Amino acid sequence: MPKPDENRERKMLDGSETVELLVCIKCRGDALPDDEGERPGAVLHRRLAEEGVEGVRITPVECLSNCTRGCTVALRGPGRWTYVYGAFEGEGDLSPLREGALRYRDAADGLVPWRERPEHFRKNCIARIPPL
Amino acid sequence: MPKPDENRERKMLDGSETVELLVCIKCRGDALPDDEGERPGAVLHRRLAEEGVEGVRITPVECLSNCTRGCTVALRGPGRWTYVYGAFEGEGDLSPLREGALRYRDAADGLVPWRERPEHFRKNCIARIPPL
Repeated sequence: MPKPDENRERKMLDGSETVELLVCIKCRGDALPDDEGERPGAVLHRRLAEEGVEGVRITPVECLSNCTRGCTVALRGPGRWTYVYGAFEGEGDLSPLREGALRYRDAADGLVPWRERPEHFRKNCIARIPPL
Repeated sequence: MPKPDENRERKMLDGSETVELLVCIKCRGDALPDDEGERPGAVLHRRLAEEGVEGVRITPVECLSNCTRGCTVALRGPGRWTYVYGAFEGEGDLSPLREGALRYRDAADGLVPWRERPEHFRKNCIARIPPL
């Protein structure tokens, strides 16, 4: 039985580093249409990109078409279910999103058991798509 | 300039037949939890599979996680944006869904201009995901 760190290394070498966190940089969240300045989605992306999420590529996207329930992100990777989640805040606590992304990274098919998903993920799943 | 039919044949030979319409067969739509019989999503899938959509593969899926706005479908294909649409009815008119699927099939990257999308697609887009 490998120790956690060895297990992580194995995962990193067999392709799971291709897990991708897409972040909509156009999302306004609760901001009003005439609010100026950096959009909440862009703030969320900037903070995630600055901090990084180990083994997860962070990619900005212009609109994930979930405008009424933003800020919006998606998690995907080869051979995995893709998940779209909403209702994040640009300046909000990043830890549920980071935790959910790590759980997803560690699930080979992207299917994280319900109880292991952060509450925000359980309450704000917008859609999912099966692997090709 | 090829005639439309020749153009269609070319499309069919170069891989656009891999456009896929995923249909959630678990969607209840407006049916109540204790309603018995075939679920609206399963009805929708059965009817689409029976009629077929030219050049589009129709695939049943168990839950696209858009349960509050079903019935739910997704359109995807290699090199294309994936789109999730909701609010279809199992017994409803199939023509907007068929038209939207054909427009998607004919757009190489899956991006159908807004004005060319059926009204149901414009009003009930749940999310979209960029190509890998």
